[in-house]
Amino acid sequence: MASTSRLVRQAITPIKTFSWLSGRPTRYTAWNPVRLFSVSQSRDMKFVQFTYAEKPADVRVGYLEGDNVVDLNKVDGSISSTLLDILRKGQLDKVQKVKSSNPASTPLSSVKLQAPIHGMDKVLCIGLNYKDHCEEQNLTPPPVPMFFSKFSSTIIGPSDAVQLRSDVTKCVDWEVELVVVIGKKASNVQAREAYDYVFGYTVAQDISARDWQKNKNGGQFLLGKSMDTFCPIGPCIATADEVGDPQKLNIRCSVNGVLKQSSNTEQLVHKIPDAIERLTSVMTLLPGDIILTGTPGGVGMYRDPPEYLQPGHVVESEVEKIGVLTTRVEGFRLCANK
Amino acid sequence: MASTSRLVRQAITPIKTFSWLSGRPTRYTAWNPVRLFSVSQSRDMKFVQFTYAEKPADVRVGYLEGDNVVDLNKVDGSISSTLLDILRKGQLDKVQKVKSSNPASTPLSSVKLQAPIHGMDKVLCIGLNYKDHCEEQNLTPPPVPMFFSKFSSTIIGPSDAVQLRSDVTKCVDWEVELVVVIGKKASNVQAREAYDYVFGYTVAQDISARDWQKNKNGGQFLLGKSMDTFCPIGPCIATADEVGDPQKLNIRCSVNGVLKQSSNTEQLVHKIPDAIERLTSVMTLLPGDIILTGTPGGVGMYRDPPEYLQPGHVVESEVEKIGVLTTRVEGFRLCANK
Repeated sequence: MASTSRLVRQAITPIKTFSWLSGRPTRYTAWNPVRLFSVSQSRDMKFVQFTYAEKPADVRVGYLEGDNVVDLNKVDGSISSTLLDILRKGQLDKVQKVKSSNPASTPLSSVKLQAPIHGMDKVLCIGLNYKDHCEEQNLTPPPVPMFFSKFSSTIIGPSDAVQLRSDVTKCVDWEVELVVVIGKKASNVQAREAYDYVFGYTVAQDISARDWQKNKNGGQFLLGKSMDTFCPIGPCIATADEVGDPQKLNIRCSVNGVLKQSSNTEQLVHKIPDAIERLTSVMTLLPGDIILTGTPGGVGMYRDPPEYLQPGHVVESEVEKIGVLTTRVEGFRLCANK
Repeated sequence: MASTSRLVRQAITPIKTFSWLSGRPTRYTAWNPVRLFSVSQSRDMKFVQFTYAEKPADVRVGYLEGDNVVDLNKVDGSISSTLLDILRKGQLDKVQKVKSSNPASTPLSSVKLQAPIHGMDKVLCIGLNYKDHCEEQNLTPPPVPMFFSKFSSTIIGPSDAVQLRSDVTKCVDWEVELVVVIGKKASNVQAREAYDYVFGYTVAQDISARDWQKNKNGGQFLLGKSMDTFCPIGPCIATADEVGDPQKLNIRCSVNGVLKQSSNTEQLVHKIPDAIERLTSVMTLLPGDIILTGTPGGVGMYRDPPEYLQPGHVVESEVEKIGVLTTRVEGFRLCANK
């Protein structure tokens, strides 16, 4: 059964990988290592979305069971084939039934992990939400959570690469974040009941073109935050039960194996329930909407000298109890889409 | 056949209506008047989405023919029942086939008009894009278009009402805007070819809670712009061929029949092709994405004294060659959605 620290392998283009702790290169491999924590033996689950090699455009949804994945739609054809649809249609009971039926599963090594959820209405982000991230900018944390957004089409998964457009920006930065996934429609929710609306948690990189975020769009963050591929998430969504207290999780980020950010979600300035209360006082959150809760200190822009992502870099983003999201960085390739 | 100025009636809750020109109340009516311009005899079309009374949750897509609407999916079952899907799946050829078959149609009076498109990835907005709107704020127009966004879930149609949450804001303002509807995937598009990617145009109200937009979210416009119901659009999408030059259109807005904004889209600071070039240099626009191109002077906040929307107000927003979008304003009613 599941061990407490496993290496879930995923077949993608060979990349150079690094030891998380030492920062030294470890080996070349044909596998992109995605380290996950234990899959609980309880009803708690880790949801993933994935594709089979023979159908690369056909996203499937499943949950992890050891080093295998259960393809939910394959076991029960009435279950939707995306996590967003499962949440929208309220099919979690069906998922539990599948789980209790000891279904057949597929080795993770035979599929490609994709973003664990996609296509939602809202990708919300909280700015300046770790004390040390405010300090590195000589800013006082804002008195209330400050929200901006990305488009859901910016989401990529563990099999995809962030694409740098060197013709438009040379200031692309990393930001590891804990992500809240909303499970059901939420309007006018009080902080004390906010967790009732949380389905689970994942990890994100809030990739940011600092020049566009700060100076090239009249102070509105949108363009600097919403370039194509600027929202890697994954590797899985750990359900709320699985995670327990989301504000006691180690969070860190390395670039090319060198630790850049290391904190704990207990350092969040504005807590998750308060963010949900504020958001739902003005808008309805919908199933599948996600909230990126902010990044700790250690981003590239405020280093001396500043550091930015380059083609060939590998970013590893980890949140305790969820897993490690590994993201390759590539130079932008113009798509033939016209 | 179609006349050049028709009154398309739509059955909704009785409201008080006003003369567009005089600003005086005209009558009480059980119809919400949506004045449309001519439906061309050419292949150009005005697309609408609507519902039948017996199936209020089942959105349909059609096009106008005189005072009637052709239900596309009813004529050809292989055509999608939303405009977004028609664009995503590239079904416009099928639509043209339907049109040339002289299909049966339904009187507009027997359906409810809904937003002409919904559920898209991106609702982009350009700030400070009319010279007189900059002047009323004592601001210089920005040297490049400045973009912010709304969530697509904020979209409402001619049958819906803007809901004011007096517990969170008392500064809700109007902004009539010409809207560009993207027809196909667009990345790295040059201005000179930008119109090739435009499917058509509609009218929007970029409803804005000024206190949240300016002061209550760290300067990021998002929350002030993305409250529930803050993006009325409609009444139809006029295809690009139907509209011709989108930068020679009269645009105006009245509140309770009193003219508040009156300009012409030739006053746009940053033209539509330039906005598309800038956006697509950093992100891929997708079929159905919309761009609100900015509002002329005459909004409520910069009047002396400032004026804001109140429950019971009726906003009429008009763009030449597209039509008039009539929007009721209501007090917020807490939804039982938990």
